[in-house]
Amino acid sequence: MRLKVKFSKWTAGLPVSMLNRETAIKLGVDTEGIILIKTLEGHIHKTFSSVDTVEGNLVEENEVLISTEVRKRMNLKKGQVVDVNISPESESLSYIKKKLYNKTITKKEIDQIIHDIINNSISGPEISLFVAGMSLNGMNERELISMIESILSHGNRLSLKSEFVVDKHSIGGVPGNRTTPLVVSICAAGGLIFPKTSSRAITSEAGTADVIEAIADVEFSIKELKEIIRKTNAFLVWGGSLDLVPADSKIIRIEKKLKIDPESQMIASIMAKKIAVGSRYILIDIPYGKNTKVTKKKAEKLKRKFTDLAKHFHKKIEIVLTEGSQPIGRGIGPALELIDIINILDPKSRGPKDLEDKSLFLAGKIFEITGKAKQGKGRKMAQEILNSGKAFEKFKQIIKAQNGSFKKIKPSRFKKNISAKTNGKIKEINNKDIVTLARILGCPGDKSSGIYLNFKVGEKISKRDTLLTLYAETENRLNEALKFYYNNKTIKIRH
Amino acid sequence: MRLKVKFSKWTAGLPVSMLNRETAIKLGVDTEGIILIKTLEGHIHKTFSSVDTVEGNLVEENEVLISTEVRKRMNLKKGQVVDVNISPESESLSYIKKKLYNKTITKKEIDQIIHDIINNSISGPEISLFVAGMSLNGMNERELISMIESILSHGNRLSLKSEFVVDKHSIGGVPGNRTTPLVVSICAAGGLIFPKTSSRAITSEAGTADVIEAIADVEFSIKELKEIIRKTNAFLVWGGSLDLVPADSKIIRIEKKLKIDPESQMIASIMAKKIAVGSRYILIDIPYGKNTKVTKKKAEKLKRKFTDLAKHFHKKIEIVLTEGSQPIGRGIGPALELIDIINILDPKSRGPKDLEDKSLFLAGKIFEITGKAKQGKGRKMAQEILNSGKAFEKFKQIIKAQNGSFKKIKPSRFKKNISAKTNGKIKEINNKDIVTLARILGCPGDKSSGIYLNFKVGEKISKRDTLLTLYAETENRLNEALKFYYNNKTIKIRH
Repeated sequence: MRLKVKFSKWTAGLPVSMLNRETAIKLGVDTEGIILIKTLEGHIHKTFSSVDTVEGNLVEENEVLISTEVRKRMNLKKGQVVDVNISPESESLSYIKKKLYNKTITKKEIDQIIHDIINNSISGPEISLFVAGMSLNGMNERELISMIESILSHGNRLSLKSEFVVDKHSIGGVPGNRTTPLVVSICAAGGLIFPKTSSRAITSEAGTADVIEAIADVEFSIKELKEIIRKTNAFLVWGGSLDLVPADSKIIRIEKKLKIDPESQMIASIMAKKIAVGSRYILIDIPYGKNTKVTKKKAEKLKRKFTDLAKHFHKKIEIVLTEGSQPIGRGIGPALELIDIINILDPKSRGPKDLEDKSLFLAGKIFEITGKAKQGKGRKMAQEILNSGKAFEKFKQIIKAQNGSFKKIKPSRFKKNISAKTNGKIKEINNKDIVTLARILGCPGDKSSGIYLNFKVGEKISKRDTLLTLYAETENRLNEALKFYYNNKTIKIRH
Repeated sequence: MRLKVKFSKWTAGLPVSMLNRETAIKLGVDTEGIILIKTLEGHIHKTFSSVDTVEGNLVEENEVLISTEVRKRMNLKKGQVVDVNISPESESLSYIKKKLYNKTITKKEIDQIIHDIINNSISGPEISLFVAGMSLNGMNERELISMIESILSHGNRLSLKSEFVVDKHSIGGVPGNRTTPLVVSICAAGGLIFPKTSSRAITSEAGTADVIEAIADVEFSIKELKEIIRKTNAFLVWGGSLDLVPADSKIIRIEKKLKIDPESQMIASIMAKKIAVGSRYILIDIPYGKNTKVTKKKAEKLKRKFTDLAKHFHKKIEIVLTEGSQPIGRGIGPALELIDIINILDPKSRGPKDLEDKSLFLAGKIFEITGKAKQGKGRKMAQEILNSGKAFEKFKQIIKAQNGSFKKIKPSRFKKNISAKTNGKIKEINNKDIVTLARILGCPGDKSSGIYLNFKVGEKISKRDTLLTLYAETENRLNEALKFYYNNKTIKIRH
């Protein structure tokens, strides 16, 4: 059907078109349906777009109102006539159903699925089926390799040429646990190249990108990142803006919505990201235990899968299983976590021992796999770099290169101490409750909000000791958090 | 977070809000995410809304641009400050996952799912999971009953008081096969009350609503429908606008997108619609065979399920299994099907024998289950009503009551005859190819487009006989259809 192009300044994050409801009925397409828009000249410019229907006169029957994403892709002019049709059935839908009904899918089929995801010719509901299929039936090694290759072939690459490009990843699930800025600073100070891309939080209290964003920029072009690496050997940025793994980002968006995290997608996602930045050495941290993402048994199974894939892609990998049944560090929330980090980095002050220990352990492992330190000597090397103040200098350099400053760090002005009611010993700090509490307080949006834990599991407490402090930008959030804290046994005490 | 309400005349078919990207990040919500909007006064008015993110200045950081659906539900004023938060996790997501992972779900859980679908607190991706779960694991009778009750409790009812309210349904899959207008006219002429709601086509060449829409209105309020019934004993309208089963409509929208049609959802949907219009007697037609929706075995299984459910809901039901491996009638497409129907109804002309036979068979069955005719005498009664011209009169009355007229019926001006190249006998007419061909020609949007079949399976043809005629509103569509016809063996001939 021929329709006239109409604009507004509407940017929807993906190509969307509004059609008059009558037009939609004629095309046989419904809200959330997909149309194919072509220009009239030789059909070279085309784009898939999802559909909003409009009953009013915002869009007339002979018009299509397109979002900025459609306009840019097709370079359309106001009033231009385009050919609009219901999207032909995407082949990838049948491949997605193969996975849903427990059949293996080929490289070619996975390529088509990833291509259609990138292309917007399939959207939320179809991606949701793909996620369900992966969750129910998993993927074999062949499928995982195809998935990784396909994700990579649709994204940008950082292609750093150095011999010593390293990367680390934690599968997450433990609040605090902000080892990344420490490990990156120590390793980069020790001569390694550490191009670290991180995620923002959707369900956790904060992602590393949220934390760094409290004091520096985290979105750069690939060209800018290469310049930062040249100056400092490292960066700490948000991975999402680089389009390294755009297909992966779209799948993850749906997974977060569904709160389903299929193992195969997680593995493919991690490996693809590490390969996209060009790292030769990869350290993966799998926290296991109560209220984490995986049991120890599952962690061991994951370790074997990562090992096999790394071999296929010629990467040197080290996978460490770490106990994660309580938060790591004392601060929970961007600013409070940064305070811990700086206290550890600064040789003149002291930060939480558990976070320091874990970071030294991880940095040490990286020194060992790269050959910078002999087997068993990595941790010592990391400790020396930390003690010397060189890691702190490196962190300052990175933050400066990312247009940042330390001045911004301070906890929120509304705060509330929670005291122990009796003497005893801390029995449990529930990871999931701590995350919920931090989010109620305003994390990750309110950078200064969060929790400070004065005690950790196993430590003795006396009546009236301050167990923890809550910080928020509004009294309302503070009160809601208090309510949650007392309704849930977030911290259990043995009397 | 407190945001200022902004309007435009944007009607999206469901509640949608646009947020500035920075605001979305602060809320921890992404495009396609769900927010909960509350007014500041006592939080009585609230609504769930899905999210578009905007990078430009169409929406400032302290604003939320709401669609008409949000404005109407909450009665908001321009500039009013509302409290916007990420939607709390919907419980129904975990119930949906129970079904996905092959556990049965309770009445309460199904209620919550249906409630959240109606409420827009879950959307495409979650509904997609629910569809996948029903498709993979089915539903037992208890679940089906709960699903039907729950769908009904969230919709309107027609509540006609008469003893003789009847309904029919075909599970579809056979092109042409437009028995409904015939059966309704014959039965209503025979004294039965026939409140027939039908669907529009999404994947077929036309739904009954599309066909009737070619000559009459098909959207009315419940009050108007009661008036039409009072005058004529029947109507032939589109079910979608009545909100009889709004949850069902939303689920079906996703199913069409995924091209998954779970049996349990189909059964629940049919039963709920029949109960919503208040019918006491129900006839269900299940066409089986090559290129239909079900095999004969599957049809028999479906028959048992419908029988059990009808018993539970105290409905008298008759389920007929009919052979459907080729189109029924000669015309395919709204206008062409109407021409067949009128030729059958008008005692002075003749229409396709197969369509007439099937309609008489179905109408006869209805006369028998209602007791209007004795067992085995229904068809004769139907034939007499048809021959007398009373059914034709009834059809004219219904069309008139729906503001219609017969003048509009004519096939498209661009046409192409396809001739037989040799002598032979028709071996197969592929249902699915016929549907695709009709859609390429412009069905169901272009009411006058479609196919006219001059021969049916088993009939002899001679070289140069016109096998079929294609009709379209543009030459381009005609040429594309011809291409499809010759590339696919739509009609197979035995020489």
